[in-house]
Amino acid sequence: MNVFFQKRKTIRHYSDAEISDAEISELIADAMNAPTTGGMQLYSVIVTRKAEMKKKLSPCHFGQPMVTEAPVVLTFCADFNRFEKWCVKSGAKPGFRNFESFVSAMLDVTIFAQQFCTAAEMEGLGCCYIGTTTYNAKEIAEVLELPKMVVPIVTLTVGHPFDADAEPKAERLPIEAIIHDERYKDYSGNDIVKIYSDKEEMQVNKQFVKENNKQTLAQVFTDVRYPQDASEHFSELFFDFIEDQGFKFPK
Amino acid sequence: MNVFFQKRKTIRHYSDAEISDAEISELIADAMNAPTTGGMQLYSVIVTRKAEMKKKLSPCHFGQPMVTEAPVVLTFCADFNRFEKWCVKSGAKPGFRNFESFVSAMLDVTIFAQQFCTAAEMEGLGCCYIGTTTYNAKEIAEVLELPKMVVPIVTLTVGHPFDADAEPKAERLPIEAIIHDERYKDYSGNDIVKIYSDKEEMQVNKQFVKENNKQTLAQVFTDVRYPQDASEHFSELFFDFIEDQGFKFPK
Repeated sequence: MNVFFQKRKTIRHYSDAEISDAEISELIADAMNAPTTGGMQLYSVIVTRKAEMKKKLSPCHFGQPMVTEAPVVLTFCADFNRFEKWCVKSGAKPGFRNFESFVSAMLDVTIFAQQFCTAAEMEGLGCCYIGTTTYNAKEIAEVLELPKMVVPIVTLTVGHPFDADAEPKAERLPIEAIIHDERYKDYSGNDIVKIYSDKEEMQVNKQFVKENNKQTLAQVFTDVRYPQDASEHFSELFFDFIEDQGFKFPK
Repeated sequence: MNVFFQKRKTIRHYSDAEISDAEISELIADAMNAPTTGGMQLYSVIVTRKAEMKKKLSPCHFGQPMVTEAPVVLTFCADFNRFEKWCVKSGAKPGFRNFESFVSAMLDVTIFAQQFCTAAEMEGLGCCYIGTTTYNAKEIAEVLELPKMVVPIVTLTVGHPFDADAEPKAERLPIEAIIHDERYKDYSGNDIVKIYSDKEEMQVNKQFVKENNKQTLAQVFTDVRYPQDASEHFSELFFDFIEDQGFKFPK
């Protein structure tokens, strides 16, 4: 058992302690050793430290306080711009303006971001994934001046934990919910009840249901946190933005 | 500097040593503590050990030898099936059959897979990402009996390294190529030459150019490894498969 992984937490509150440029660079250098499709490193990371830039990013993330409060905000982007420019410069004809290439770059940058997160946590820093990056990708691209073939995918806020003990440890499903032996074993109604019962019984989640005037925890997810009309709206925005950036979906 | 991350390598050759079910379960339990969108854990992992199942997966990965030679093959899937079933069971109306939800699940499972990879490497195991999972996702889904709302995203082969020293250490671009300060700084022709020169000068890459009868390394990528017509072909297949599984793209 990896005790470090078992104990890790998302850190949303940061102390005033700064993180040096050298420290960030070292963590990025560590993370760059993560696996990458065909050795292509289809990613870039934009480092935001200036208060003025955080303020500009803040509405893109619906004002989530971590974005302005963390000493460092990192926007991890799927990037085929650099690789494409290299191809052109080398007398090669790049053919990456399609969905599959976008998928490769998205995998690449997510692996890289997660390796950064782990490297940072192993140094005692705290991180938080900001889940709104693909919602307002266009606005983020404007603030960070992203060229064609570059799409923001993941935002991490990074800082020294203010009080790691005070941050909640997120609950997880039992492992039987996740793992399948040789073939996918679909879930019966009883399986579902069993898998989710601990989650539903947690006091914090019961409180959550009550506060939102719902009958069940699942309704908080479908009606409040991830309603269908919002998901469909953001689907359209992100789909159009990916195409605007140069990656064309099949017709 | 994280020496462990700096030294890590992709491992493509495995010894005969087995990995127990308990060991795999523990590593998955470790990885489950990785960050996940809204605590939803939008992923499943299918564990393949049986020779017969590896043989069925092999053509989906174009016969890459790691798939049949590794003791364990893991297929990590974006999974909204389990969560959707929970919603229905809980009197909630799920609204996840869209592109944005697919993107969330794809991020989730990639973070989870990378955390598994790191946990396994920290235990002395070796892993290899098989980059063909999204190319033949439909065939993989048939072999593994994936239901609607489940899409295979990442395949990892896992085993004890046969000879870690003999595996090549992949080169990486200089960090200046990846990191941008406050705003994306686009690359001039000179920047591109500088960034890629070490990569191009490596003996192994020069050999690669020669073997493939090309003038430049970039041409190996565009003409041999990732040609446009293949990328566009796989774009269509994956796009259609995602829709078949239930995630609808905007019209």
